[in-house]
Amino acid sequence: MDEPTNGGVTPHEKTFKANNRNRVRRGLKRAVYDKKTVYEILDSHFLCHVGFYVDGQPQMIPTCHWREGNKLYWHGSSKSKMITHLAAGNPACVSVTQLDGLVLARSAFNTSVNFRSVVCYGQPKLVEDDTEFERQMVLFFNQIAPGRWPQLRAMTAQERKATGMLEMEIEDASAKVRGVGPGDSDEADFPVWAGVVPTRMVQDAPIAASEGEAAPLNHSVMGRYGWAQSTGGK
Amino acid sequence: MDEPTNGGVTPHEKTFKANNRNRVRRGLKRAVYDKKTVYEILDSHFLCHVGFYVDGQPQMIPTCHWREGNKLYWHGSSKSKMITHLAAGNPACVSVTQLDGLVLARSAFNTSVNFRSVVCYGQPKLVEDDTEFERQMVLFFNQIAPGRWPQLRAMTAQERKATGMLEMEIEDASAKVRGVGPGDSDEADFPVWAGVVPTRMVQDAPIAASEGEAAPLNHSVMGRYGWAQSTGGK
Repeated sequence: MDEPTNGGVTPHEKTFKANNRNRVRRGLKRAVYDKKTVYEILDSHFLCHVGFYVDGQPQMIPTCHWREGNKLYWHGSSKSKMITHLAAGNPACVSVTQLDGLVLARSAFNTSVNFRSVVCYGQPKLVEDDTEFERQMVLFFNQIAPGRWPQLRAMTAQERKATGMLEMEIEDASAKVRGVGPGDSDEADFPVWAGVVPTRMVQDAPIAASEGEAAPLNHSVMGRYGWAQSTGGK
Repeated sequence: MDEPTNGGVTPHEKTFKANNRNRVRRGLKRAVYDKKTVYEILDSHFLCHVGFYVDGQPQMIPTCHWREGNKLYWHGSSKSKMITHLAAGNPACVSVTQLDGLVLARSAFNTSVNFRSVVCYGQPKLVEDDTEFERQMVLFFNQIAPGRWPQLRAMTAQERKATGMLEMEIEDASAKVRGVGPGDSDEADFPVWAGVVPTRMVQDAPIAASEGEAAPLNHSVMGRYGWAQSTGGK
């Protein structure tokens, strides 16, 4: 089963192959390699963490991502260390994690969390073609605020230049999913409450800029994530 | 200002020194180095991402952390790659990120997110002393579910052996915080809605294990995080 960690994209297969870098070694029953699950988790949030290694030091940057097919995208300042270092040919890992609850078992050892997480590996490269850059920006906005892109003030040449967009073919990936009650039903007689306290994201009512509303909000925001929309304040 | 990235813990100072590895280079007005802010963000969640580098590949694992003073703690299977690799003397970075909202500006370029994030750097080591191990487990439980630890079935010798706990002195760290409206009030006349859609975590009513309640839930859960407690279902 051990294969070199050189990736190997398999677009027609339904699962990522497990190899040295993406194999889940602990908690095997939580490991998922099928692309459908990996993609669903990637698409369930726009917050990711990008990991890289520079000057002998692991680094991590939280940022926003989107996905098209088997490719992940994110952007940042074109001069940032993260963008320039990865665009220069250095590998990345990208993780997306959803926390779904705290699992309270009868022992510390079985205490756990319910979560969905994915870690993807690949070699990012810069999106240099302007047409592709704009097409990807549209996809990004279609994810976070569908219908908004055509309403925006157009990007200037200077803004385009200041924005570095990375594209990363997902060479391999693995997901971990836990979504059940405490795993110690064999200790159910022990006299302590056991169960799950669910956690989730919500989004609150939009707050207009202090300058006032030049136009109504006439499109959805983050609708695809399925977060409950609170109408009250915090 | 540039100093070697060898850390240098300064327990009596109120800020982390900015050096090659923790200096925020882009979005300078969002950079925060004071320990109070860094600690507050670390303490605001128990979900972190641990970054490391092994076999030529950046790796990242989401896990749960807690803090005591200037030290971060997390645990995992004692045989996991993450624990064994870091315990062997390899550096880590640990990030905690809170997503507070999506900032919709009049242009794509000014579109942003409100967030609080921190990245910490250091050299983890194993907590080998059993007394210290248990003291830290108590601190961890005091964070996620204060009052629960004494109620739990005690840890067995086998469970202790299977658990690897890491301690990391925070050699340096930096935070980034954005918590304001869109930064393009100079374009307020542009006819598109602009503002912030806040996001936050909530916790829902506890769900008892399917085996039934051996005892009532008589302590708070995740209370310190200040997440609103929904009483309804999802």
